Amino acid sequence: MLNIKLAFAQTNPVVGDFSNNASVICELMSEAHSQGTELLVFGELALSGYPMGDFSYRPDLVALCDEALATVVAHSKTLSGLTTVLGHIALADSAGPELQVSAAIAHNSASVIFQGQILGRYDKMRLPNYDVFDDWRNFVPGSDELIFEIKGHKVAIAICEDIWGPSERGSRLAALGVELVVVPNGSPFTKGKNAERLAAASNFAKGMHLAYANLSGGQDELVFDGQSFLIAPDGVLQYRAGFNPGLYCVEVGSIDVTAEPELLWSALVMGLRDYLAKTGQTKVVLGLSGGIDSALCAALAVDAVGASNVLGVGLPSRYSSDHSLRDAEQLAQNLGIEYRVVPIDPAHLALESMISLHGLAGENVQARIRAVVLMGISNSEGHLLLTTGNKSELAVGYSTVYGDSAGGFAPIKDLFKTDVWAMARYCNERSGAELIPNESIEKAPSAELRPGQLDQDSLPDYAVLDEVLRLLIEEGFTLSQITERGFSRQTVSEIDRLVQRAEWKRSQGAIGTKVSKVAFGRGRRVPLTTRFEAR
Amino acid sequence: MLNIKLAFAQTNPVVGDFSNNASVICELMSEAHSQGTELLVFGELALSGYPMGDFSYRPDLVALCDEALATVVAHSKTLSGLTTVLGHIALADSAGPELQVSAAIAHNSASVIFQGQILGRYDKMRLPNYDVFDDWRNFVPGSDELIFEIKGHKVAIAICEDIWGPSERGSRLAALGVELVVVPNGSPFTKGKNAERLAAASNFAKGMHLAYANLSGGQDELVFDGQSFLIAPDGVLQYRAGFNPGLYCVEVGSIDVTAEPELLWSALVMGLRDYLAKTGQTKVVLGLSGGIDSALCAALAVDAVGASNVLGVGLPSRYSSDHSLRDAEQLAQNLGIEYRVVPIDPAHLALESMISLHGLAGENVQARIRAVVLMGISNSEGHLLLTTGNKSELAVGYSTVYGDSAGGFAPIKDLFKTDVWAMARYCNERSGAELIPNESIEKAPSAELRPGQLDQDSLPDYAVLDEVLRLLIEEGFTLSQITERGFSRQTVSEIDRLVQRAEWKRSQGAIGTKVSKVAFGRGRRVPLTTRFEAR
Repeated sequence: MLNIKLAFAQTNPVVGDFSNNASVICELMSEAHSQGTELLVFGELALSGYPMGDFSYRPDLVALCDEALATVVAHSKTLSGLTTVLGHIALADSAGPELQVSAAIAHNSASVIFQGQILGRYDKMRLPNYDVFDDWRNFVPGSDELIFEIKGHKVAIAICEDIWGPSERGSRLAALGVELVVVPNGSPFTKGKNAERLAAASNFAKGMHLAYANLSGGQDELVFDGQSFLIAPDGVLQYRAGFNPGLYCVEVGSIDVTAEPELLWSALVMGLRDYLAKTGQTKVVLGLSGGIDSALCAALAVDAVGASNVLGVGLPSRYSSDHSLRDAEQLAQNLGIEYRVVPIDPAHLALESMISLHGLAGENVQARIRAVVLMGISNSEGHLLLTTGNKSELAVGYSTVYGDSAGGFAPIKDLFKTDVWAMARYCNERSGAELIPNESIEKAPSAELRPGQLDQDSLPDYAVLDEVLRLLIEEGFTLSQITERGFSRQTVSEIDRLVQRAEWKRSQGAIGTKVSKVAFGRGRRVPLTTRFEAR
Repeated sequence: MLNIKLAFAQTNPVVGDFSNNASVICELMSEAHSQGTELLVFGELALSGYPMGDFSYRPDLVALCDEALATVVAHSKTLSGLTTVLGHIALADSAGPELQVSAAIAHNSASVIFQGQILGRYDKMRLPNYDVFDDWRNFVPGSDELIFEIKGHKVAIAICEDIWGPSERGSRLAALGVELVVVPNGSPFTKGKNAERLAAASNFAKGMHLAYANLSGGQDELVFDGQSFLIAPDGVLQYRAGFNPGLYCVEVGSIDVTAEPELLWSALVMGLRDYLAKTGQTKVVLGLSGGIDSALCAALAVDAVGASNVLGVGLPSRYSSDHSLRDAEQLAQNLGIEYRVVPIDPAHLALESMISLHGLAGENVQARIRAVVLMGISNSEGHLLLTTGNKSELAVGYSTVYGDSAGGFAPIKDLFKTDVWAMARYCNERSGAELIPNESIEKAPSAELRPGQLDQDSLPDYAVLDEVLRLLIEEGFTLSQITERGFSRQTVSEIDRLVQRAEWKRSQGAIGTKVSKVAFGRGRRVPLTTRFEAR
């Protein structure tokens, strides 16, 4: 049993906002000190924000980070007995290894701060270059261990990806007598991630304690979901913190066990809330169609910024059904948000008098008029427009570019339609009320861009579509592997073809919260122009 | 003097289209053989297409490439005396080095093919991870030299980035008796690139001949600009091929010397042409405002797909000036393209009756109505919509999202406004006619979204703006370094602030041809949410 009083500081930095990031850090250090903490661990790059992208190349940002670090170190002078491990960028003394062909100038580091001094600095060694991660592009890898002592215990540092590799390094540290590994992380939420983190930690730290500290907050499409934890040398979980930012003093045996649907809900809310907060916005507007996607987005928005900051707009066309308008109004009433109705027919008629619009053009123009109206409201009144498309639609291009895809943030872009239904049901379950009208959940999805239109007229059944898409995009299955699961070859090929064809649309889409292994966004990089018959 | 008959095959592969790529390759091999070629060198990944992005992870694509390679090898059986160096992907036998934390499964390779056999395979060693390049993410690095012989001469292979590093490797090869290094490249055009390529080649190949083979064609935002070349052991240029795809048999002393403005023009035309060709499209539509940006885009489009495939649309609002409409019509006439006029007032009036539109909202709505009209035409008639914004506007966010930014391709997105003027003048100069009306070139730029509006009312003078942006974005200067060049601190800070604020708009922008060191696109990866006072 370690006799070190350990605490995690889960912060939500804004990239580049060194003075505010530092002031939050100093406050948490004081609070931790006042509670008798002996070792306080922050998340990855807590001082500079993570990921910084190519801003890590800017020498002025590295200099600003140095100054902010000096402020934090000065603040630590009076915090007797407190050791702090804090993540920050640091100028590299030399270029990276010969294999690294990048423009990186800085390390991804963590310093050990104690009573006005930096006892040492560790630089991240394993720099991930997959999914959303560009660390190898943006940082110079480190090469040296940093081992320091607290109350006679040897403590080592690893940063995030460092512990996800082969475990020889953990064994070496243990052989050197290290008893505790502290690990600052910038680990984004994905479904089922906690089990993976535990497995990686215990694989790395066999025979040592491991203290895993995560950031907590949304940064662009990522949500860092806190839940910092401590494992014992036998790999058993001893403590897990909550989801939100704040100071968490470790009490062995206290284990946060938020269930998976609530974690997913919280991640979606946090991603939206922090995108707004970090871009200085407070209000959102969205079109309410009476359908399930916009209903779920509205409910998430109410949790993110409060009902008084959410504006719903009904935008009926000549093809909208009465029940859709009724469902939209009912939703707004249930959520307690402002609701307006702007029929789009005047603009629709005007445009029909201006140009000839047949078939798909006649459908798309309605979605685009709605976007013009919503962006007009957004520009006049200062709301951020939410776009409510789901992953199934985005995957196969079942959306109108500059129409329903218009918006600054896409809260549910990484949820398949079947996930949307599940989350809508969970929304009502967790609130104990029918916030989202059951009618919206139960009815067959329709874009209502022509009379009697149903999604399933032009798309495979969502249960089929979503599973094929999941295997194709998130699991990287080949078409043959998917077919082996019992799906028809023709269906699978057609879906793959649609996914390829819609690449250009997605490339112009809004960002939104990533909750899966592979989301449409920075973590999936493919050409727009391709031509192949996948197998 | 090498007595090997050398030829370059500059191809324009479509990513994943193995059968067509292979058939072009086989044709060029036959043609080269019939001309007595002894060594034929293709560009980087000529068989699979480059860059492939994360499609390099798909085992089915690797298998398709293997089969296509077998076809090419079989074809070579009857081509006696011809050695071919061909780029392709190849499944790696083992994972990459410990430092590589990626999902890569394949090498970026080149095989030596001779009379029905593969004599050997070389795998690219230096995998770039900067700018647009994700090779370290997508490929497993190689580690072994491949040296083969032709007519008693030792020949080695390096691929693209391999020759841009430290030159020890070149010295090692020379010490091994290598006389010629052949280098397949996927080297994108940027202004001034030929001089850089020559310098890199002669730095690497001191004492050896070096044959530098490039692809030729547009692939998404990149343009591979051919111009394959041969240098002598003393570094002197002996041969340079032209810009376009095709077979180029080396004749020492024949050096293509296309001047820089024509190279830039050709790159912009090729980028647009191949985006259309590779996505199966033939026609474009664009709004003609009478201004210089749309005029230049129209002229480029005429060169790319022919006047009969270009549709210009005048979209006057109540604020449009007579001279603008006149200039637009004159341009269409000069270029010989179809021209229509669709006044936007009916939709403008309708929208004003639907929602209240003040200030910026009143300006933006006009740009968005134009997008709805243009996309309506695009959807009805099958044109690709071009968006005509330039780099200066995109940089500072001087554009309307879902308005003038709407479109599938942005031909001049990497040209600053001052470059646009220069290219417009060059367009007239090269054609020997006033294709672009001088009036459009000379007049003060205006968005004409309110009476008397001029760009320079809300932006710094373009000469100042463009140079500050160039230093900031392309050269990576800090604000202090820019101020030292004589620009006011306030102006520079304001521009940096505007650039940060417009990040979200750019993230939803169309792709367009990259012609500078750092373009807005895949090569510049920064967060959307940041907050810092740069220095």
